[in-house]
Amino acid sequence: MSSSQDTKQAHFNVFLRAAGHHAAAWRHPSTTPELTFQFDYYKRLALTAERGLLDSVFMADGYVGTGRRLEPFTLLSALAAVTTNLGLIGTVGTTYNEPFHVARKFASLDRISGGRSGWNIVTGHTDETAFNFGKQSHLEHSERYRWAEEFVEVTKQLWDSWEEDALVFDKAKGIQFDDSKLHEINYEGKVYKVKGPLNIPRPPQGYPVLVQAGSSESGKELAAQTAEVVFTAQPTLAEGKAFYADVKGRLARYGRTPDQILILPGFSPIIGDTRAEAQELEDELNSFHDIDRHIAALSERFGIDLTGYPLDAPVPEILNPKGIEDVNGSKSRHQLILDMLRSDANLTLRQVVNRLSAARGHLTFTGTPIEVADVIEQWLDEQGADGFNLMPPIYPEGLDSFIDKVVPELQNRGRFRTAYEGATLRENLGLAVPANRFSASAASGIASAN
Amino acid sequence: MSSSQDTKQAHFNVFLRAAGHHAAAWRHPSTTPELTFQFDYYKRLALTAERGLLDSVFMADGYVGTGRRLEPFTLLSALAAVTTNLGLIGTVGTTYNEPFHVARKFASLDRISGGRSGWNIVTGHTDETAFNFGKQSHLEHSERYRWAEEFVEVTKQLWDSWEEDALVFDKAKGIQFDDSKLHEINYEGKVYKVKGPLNIPRPPQGYPVLVQAGSSESGKELAAQTAEVVFTAQPTLAEGKAFYADVKGRLARYGRTPDQILILPGFSPIIGDTRAEAQELEDELNSFHDIDRHIAALSERFGIDLTGYPLDAPVPEILNPKGIEDVNGSKSRHQLILDMLRSDANLTLRQVVNRLSAARGHLTFTGTPIEVADVIEQWLDEQGADGFNLMPPIYPEGLDSFIDKVVPELQNRGRFRTAYEGATLRENLGLAVPANRFSASAASGIASAN
Repeated sequence: MSSSQDTKQAHFNVFLRAAGHHAAAWRHPSTTPELTFQFDYYKRLALTAERGLLDSVFMADGYVGTGRRLEPFTLLSALAAVTTNLGLIGTVGTTYNEPFHVARKFASLDRISGGRSGWNIVTGHTDETAFNFGKQSHLEHSERYRWAEEFVEVTKQLWDSWEEDALVFDKAKGIQFDDSKLHEINYEGKVYKVKGPLNIPRPPQGYPVLVQAGSSESGKELAAQTAEVVFTAQPTLAEGKAFYADVKGRLARYGRTPDQILILPGFSPIIGDTRAEAQELEDELNSFHDIDRHIAALSERFGIDLTGYPLDAPVPEILNPKGIEDVNGSKSRHQLILDMLRSDANLTLRQVVNRLSAARGHLTFTGTPIEVADVIEQWLDEQGADGFNLMPPIYPEGLDSFIDKVVPELQNRGRFRTAYEGATLRENLGLAVPANRFSASAASGIASAN
Repeated sequence: MSSSQDTKQAHFNVFLRAAGHHAAAWRHPSTTPELTFQFDYYKRLALTAERGLLDSVFMADGYVGTGRRLEPFTLLSALAAVTTNLGLIGTVGTTYNEPFHVARKFASLDRISGGRSGWNIVTGHTDETAFNFGKQSHLEHSERYRWAEEFVEVTKQLWDSWEEDALVFDKAKGIQFDDSKLHEINYEGKVYKVKGPLNIPRPPQGYPVLVQAGSSESGKELAAQTAEVVFTAQPTLAEGKAFYADVKGRLARYGRTPDQILILPGFSPIIGDTRAEAQELEDELNSFHDIDRHIAALSERFGIDLTGYPLDAPVPEILNPKGIEDVNGSKSRHQLILDMLRSDANLTLRQVVNRLSAARGHLTFTGTPIEVADVIEQWLDEQGADGFNLMPPIYPEGLDSFIDKVVPELQNRGRFRTAYEGATLRENLGLAVPANRFSASAASGIASAN
């Protein structure tokens, strides 16, 4: 069934993650956590996603901790070689990288994949990260976002530094490049100073699809200014709708229109052929849950020691709004807890931790494929989402069941594509190739962007 | 035919490079320079190399200029997904990168490829590079090598920071990692300060195969200290033998033995079924040669203006030994010219430039497959090489003819493998997996490397 003009269709990304998104997924009998570092495991997941016509897969990243993941540029490039239409989105942080390297690697990945790359822009969040790069402490939250803004601006200018027709390869005349189509950028900001041009042609997509996942005030503003896809954690439709309206409402001040950004909340459906079957899987996953470890992890993430508090009493004062203001940690995740407490002030520490552990505060739902499709349809129709960032609770089964059971249901309802619209990620997401700032005005010689 | 114990066998790397290694390759009718940025082009070359049982392919890199190449981590990762035995060597510079990022990406590539990665360690060489990273000028030559030494030491410690059996995944007990097998490195040198551990397990090969290509005094010393494969430009057997003896002779002071390093001079054979046919191809390539452009490129590379000098008079004073001492450029390439002048003091500027343009000063030879095999055999027997870094003058034909005509001849002579010896690059090169510094002494808890 093809799409009707009146029916909003869903976009889906799949968030790759070790054995699955439930914190206890790796202990479930059906998962094989040893495969976390095997390429063939990710290849199988990517081919499943592509069989299901999903828009993209996404690999997160960080520069500290025990990891449990392959590095995104290397993994996504390898996946590019074995897939054809699937988008390939990777996290790359702006605080400890060089814009030139990041622009170059994305230009290369975009070319290798024929225009299927996406960049999830993050600023990182712990002092522990800083220690791996010779720094004494992590940058303060708003300072990180200022760096990120500059970083993204530099990479965009570098991608523009080759006009599309800069490559000539005129064998008879012996001319490889049209020098007038290569541009120094001579960027000089408060943080970065980069001459350019980049040493690889502009990506087929112009820029990789720009993705943002911060839901703090600075994160939302950076998203409105820069992002084309937003990953976000919205545990209820009410919160999803508020976030959706908030972010789309910020676009006008940057001269952007609501269709230039796709909001994809995380969604972790536990799917069973019957409700009872789905509930059984949820219970089984929760039975592997180790609450002490999760409280320790949460403590590390927020830089607040939450151990020792009673589990079944209301959450400790330290997690409440007053305590949060001073923390240079992950404000988005803090906001999530505030949202939970706002909707139910009596939540216990155990309840908060349980909700975060199921899918780290993202939307969860346990039910049949029909019911999962209902949830998706409702979020689309009520302006809560343009689609979802799928976070299967366990891999590979959680993805298989979505592809084999939910996708056909959505297709029958006219809510999902029955074939890829195009060859690039931008084409499948309905996003335009950004104009090259140099192409219109380029006359001759080396022009400067500043 | 299997190898005899008395017969030294060759190892071969293939140096990937746009349309080919002859400077005019892109103008030859058989090449398609437009494919330079197409993954399928490199995939075809890699599959040819693997069909020929070659040890590895190599992708160079730089952070300035018009590039004409895909970025190594992304390209090699994509090639990993479509090959099985072929080694994948990439250049990554030490002056403008972070050891943590480089260690992490190589660990990931090594894992994706099942132990087939190699790292060509370079220090970079122009101020133009510095301008793309917010720096005013490039580091001075010996300072760069000091940074490189530290950089490599940090990455090795990071690779060791996970003992091989750190991953446990005990579902019953709920234990994913053995914390006592993860180690902070707490490295604190003059340049780098890195806490660790790395956030990905140790590479299957322990470390990627470490490659070095600097042939300056500092380069040779870094090679003797660190490298397991050396790429080098040695235009004659006499020079090759001297270099071979020099580098192998330096190993003892680092407690290493001659078999722990493989010396692979660059080799650009122009192959024809008859001598006349080969000569015809060489003449054809030279007919596309644009000497003015090459003099300009040489000027840029050395930071010396060579334009305006008479082409057919002896080389200008500025290129002679006195002029070279002060240049913070590519000393190895300078040394090459000195070597040329030493063997023939009357060389003209045109002759020097012609020799560099054929294969940038590497060994060239024009002849039949039998004659090419003779050259290889002689270099092996006279201690000039452990094999070669193949630099086909034109792609893909120059590689095809080597694989289809020279490889079988070498196999018939017992000079090349008839099947891959192993699954990893180390196994095929006959190099051991380095011991993990933490494994022997690790008792319990977090140990420090310093």
